[in-house]
Amino acid sequence: MPERSTKPYLVRAIHEWCADCGYTPYLSVKVDEHTRVPMEYVKNGEIVLNLSYDATHKLTIDNDGVRFAARFGGVSRECSVPVGAITGIFARENGQGLFFEPESAPAVPAEPKAQPGGDPQPTPPPRPRLQVVK
Amino acid sequence: MPERSTKPYLVRAIHEWCADCGYTPYLSVKVDEHTRVPMEYVKNGEIVLNLSYDATHKLTIDNDGVRFAARFGGVSRECSVPVGAITGIFARENGQGLFFEPESAPAVPAEPKAQPGGDPQPTPPPRPRLQVVK
Repeated sequence: MPERSTKPYLVRAIHEWCADCGYTPYLSVKVDEHTRVPMEYVKNGEIVLNLSYDATHKLTIDNDGVRFAARFGGVSRECSVPVGAITGIFARENGQGLFFEPESAPAVPAEPKAQPGGDPQPTPPPRPRLQVVK
Repeated sequence: MPERSTKPYLVRAIHEWCADCGYTPYLSVKVDEHTRVPMEYVKNGEIVLNLSYDATHKLTIDNDGVRFAARFGGVSRECSVPVGAITGIFARENGQGLFFEPESAPAVPAEPKAQPGGDPQPTPPPRPRLQVVK
């Protein structure tokens, strides 16, 4: 079984915490060719997305990434962010949450790709680590 | 609504990640008068508990803390760890997980106490913070 990243589990945890507290979950994203976001709102290669249930439609946060539809400037847009592009999730109201070091290459592409005859792309195993959360 | 700690959400996240990966979730605990654990296994004021579904019975990880029964030396014991006493949760197999700075006083007592005429003990709001997870 390939090593799984803890990141999507932690993203779901903070998203759930925000929902329970009535906070607005903001997702910060390092934009690259694998992310699907409204490019006109990207600044310095980054975008911050409102992941609240009020602001999104068909929100899913699974082990591959985050997908949802949301209105930008009155127009509904489909968004897709692979786990590797997520740099943080936090509450708009107080900034509390988790921030992740950017990954050099996303482990999972934003959209499934046909790979005829090929094996699925393996996820590089994350390094074992110790982590202090203050 | 009182400010809630993100800690129990993160503990559940790492516990779920361990279960999905087939890892053994270990909970490290700073023992004090609010924790209910087998004292003969406490070393230097700390204990590490196996939180796997195989090793525990009636495991619950809620926003107040962790409760379960487990066998120690062949004898079933009830354990209760308030959220404030949790110092980490990690996979036995590779040490990956999250570690928390010890709190000076647990926010929630290990066992419900009768408080006739009194208000429930308020939870001190955690400080807003930024956090980098490598």
